[in-house]
Amino acid sequence: MDYSQFFNSALDRLHTERRYRVFADLERIAGRFPHALWHSPKGKRDVVIWCSNDYLGMGQHPKVVGAMVETATRVGTGAGGTRNIAGTHHPLVQLEAELADLHGKEAALLFTSGYVSNQTGIATIAKLIPNCLILSDELNHNSMIEGIRQSGCERMVFRHNDLADLEALLKAAGPNRPKLIACESLYSMDGDVAPLAKICDLAEKYGAMTYVDEVHAVGMYGPRGGGIAERDGVMHRIDVLEGTLAKAFGCLGGYIAANGQIIDAVRSYAPGFIFTTALPPAICSAATAAIKHLKTSSWERERHQDRAARVKAILNAAGLPVMSNDTHIVPLFIGNAEKCKLASDLLLEEHGIYIQPINYPTVAKGTERLRITPSPYHDDGLIDQLAEALLQVWDRLGLPLREKSLAAE
Amino acid sequence: MDYSQFFNSALDRLHTERRYRVFADLERIAGRFPHALWHSPKGKRDVVIWCSNDYLGMGQHPKVVGAMVETATRVGTGAGGTRNIAGTHHPLVQLEAELADLHGKEAALLFTSGYVSNQTGIATIAKLIPNCLILSDELNHNSMIEGIRQSGCERMVFRHNDLADLEALLKAAGPNRPKLIACESLYSMDGDVAPLAKICDLAEKYGAMTYVDEVHAVGMYGPRGGGIAERDGVMHRIDVLEGTLAKAFGCLGGYIAANGQIIDAVRSYAPGFIFTTALPPAICSAATAAIKHLKTSSWERERHQDRAARVKAILNAAGLPVMSNDTHIVPLFIGNAEKCKLASDLLLEEHGIYIQPINYPTVAKGTERLRITPSPYHDDGLIDQLAEALLQVWDRLGLPLREKSLAAE
Repeated sequence: MDYSQFFNSALDRLHTERRYRVFADLERIAGRFPHALWHSPKGKRDVVIWCSNDYLGMGQHPKVVGAMVETATRVGTGAGGTRNIAGTHHPLVQLEAELADLHGKEAALLFTSGYVSNQTGIATIAKLIPNCLILSDELNHNSMIEGIRQSGCERMVFRHNDLADLEALLKAAGPNRPKLIACESLYSMDGDVAPLAKICDLAEKYGAMTYVDEVHAVGMYGPRGGGIAERDGVMHRIDVLEGTLAKAFGCLGGYIAANGQIIDAVRSYAPGFIFTTALPPAICSAATAAIKHLKTSSWERERHQDRAARVKAILNAAGLPVMSNDTHIVPLFIGNAEKCKLASDLLLEEHGIYIQPINYPTVAKGTERLRITPSPYHDDGLIDQLAEALLQVWDRLGLPLREKSLAAE
Repeated sequence: MDYSQFFNSALDRLHTERRYRVFADLERIAGRFPHALWHSPKGKRDVVIWCSNDYLGMGQHPKVVGAMVETATRVGTGAGGTRNIAGTHHPLVQLEAELADLHGKEAALLFTSGYVSNQTGIATIAKLIPNCLILSDELNHNSMIEGIRQSGCERMVFRHNDLADLEALLKAAGPNRPKLIACESLYSMDGDVAPLAKICDLAEKYGAMTYVDEVHAVGMYGPRGGGIAERDGVMHRIDVLEGTLAKAFGCLGGYIAANGQIIDAVRSYAPGFIFTTALPPAICSAATAAIKHLKTSSWERERHQDRAARVKAILNAAGLPVMSNDTHIVPLFIGNAEKCKLASDLLLEEHGIYIQPINYPTVAKGTERLRITPSPYHDDGLIDQLAEALLQVWDRLGLPLREKSLAAE
């Protein structure tokens, strides 16, 4: 039997739909972020990265790099086993304590990624609650959807951030049915924020548990970087907070924080936790250094918001179609997979600006976009270059501009 | 509603069944492996690790540690994004090329762990093959079982390493049905090896695809560390080889290696790959250094086998119930969850020897064991101390000894 036909036809479908992805081979330079080298087909070229999820540039912070180097030198590279089989190490134990403290919870549990923490975390929690009904925001991340699916529990989807719809579902489920509300705090592709306080009101009114994914918010919001829930003063009202070490904290890994029983139960029952090698000590030390730093330093958070606001203002003034929101994400609407890819290619090849096209399945078809993520290290000069390059690309591709706002007059 | 009741009762079940797990907080010391510090409830203590999956001690190899330190210093800590969104970096591209070469395949694809590579790799491959029937060894790892489940394909389980049973299933499925055989090359809890050449014979005879998990073999078997398939000369006959960087290569991460179309299709369709942050550059460089070293150095492999053989010989001679196999794994049968945990506790507390109890769900109930993994760095003195300590523990717990073999007379 010719099995390659199946894989070839799967790849052909992507080419036909203009959503075959090509990864750019990048080489960052510690201390020079967002500048990087692009290993292009024609050789190495200097580029400026405008789409990294290392939102605060902590991946190059001297304390973070220093912690990784020190720990690697002192204890070596890998953990050497699953958590149960020789893989629990001291930097990991310290990191879990740091995370529990960050979120004001009794305990925290680390996973190899945020994806795995949602997938095996939600599945395990929901499975341990008999007859659990999961109420899921329609824009939840793929990792949450996979976790919900794996739980085998009944799921109802509520309209995105729609409190009335959520309340109707909670009411219909009745007071005696265990219910788990699963949502994100900051949706990364649109940059909008969930009404967490009101979701907590509903959860308390109808007796539901809450699970909130804060991966695009931890480190960046709240006085100590605890996320949107900390900023909004509702951390203590949310049962399970999920976060990542791979974005604002500049490393790798995911986690949940909750009360001691929930963490102990997930630790004891989650297959995606039990059967996988623990994160390396050097990664854990680096993440701990980043979290500790961002608990007391607000410079990165303030400069980050300032940069995002400036990018939005400059692009809006130029008439570019910025999709409005109140956070650090700057989505630029294109609405066509092929043009989105072309815009990204032109920016990279002709302007040395790297912004990945965001196409299906990451966003819905017809809402393709460029997703710009300014960091504290994108200065005014880089922002002006970005606007100029985008205008040239918009012109080349015949993409529509908005009427220029008054601010630009 | 009181949700804590559900988590408490789940934890109570584990205590009742004597399989509540306690993780030992360890701190390795680069250059002194297998010696480590144990952060015990009573303070720090020196211990010898006898159950690490850092089988060859590569996690402390100067080339591997040096690569991690150099890359972290030069490019920083995290990858900063998913593979598609700014996360593809040069050390990762180089590592994938190194892995493809190791296995003689056109391409390789990295995942955050071996668990994820099986879970999303198998699920994606099988889903892309219409009406695929998966034939799965009954002792396959949890990550493979989860991948098979997630694929939604029909699954039939064949008896462990039983070629007649596998052939019967292949024959019954008929020549026109696409079939995927999924097995491991070296089963980590018993240490036994699959008859890969004969499985390939059957796959070719009945037109099945093959997927082989080599996580407990890569680096350790074959002239260049390509695993059991390389040792047995059948690498080119297996469609998909899966391996890990977290065991013999001393780092973190998992991968698959296969022809270009399969890798490209998994890259394009696997949710557990698309939606997760790429491995950090420093991890990738360290893994590449370990793989390169083990491609040409046989010292570690030879010494590893020598140490394993010596441990088996000494423990057998002492009448301890070594479960026989031909590999580097030394399982010691206990058959009782509580005594297994007690034996482990006594070894750690009274003898400074760390060997984790292996209980359900990692092995079947009634087959609880201590699983000893000698490394090239466990010298004769440590082996003698291990045997002496085990005998004292066996005596304390009233565990049965075999009649001593003649070799011990």
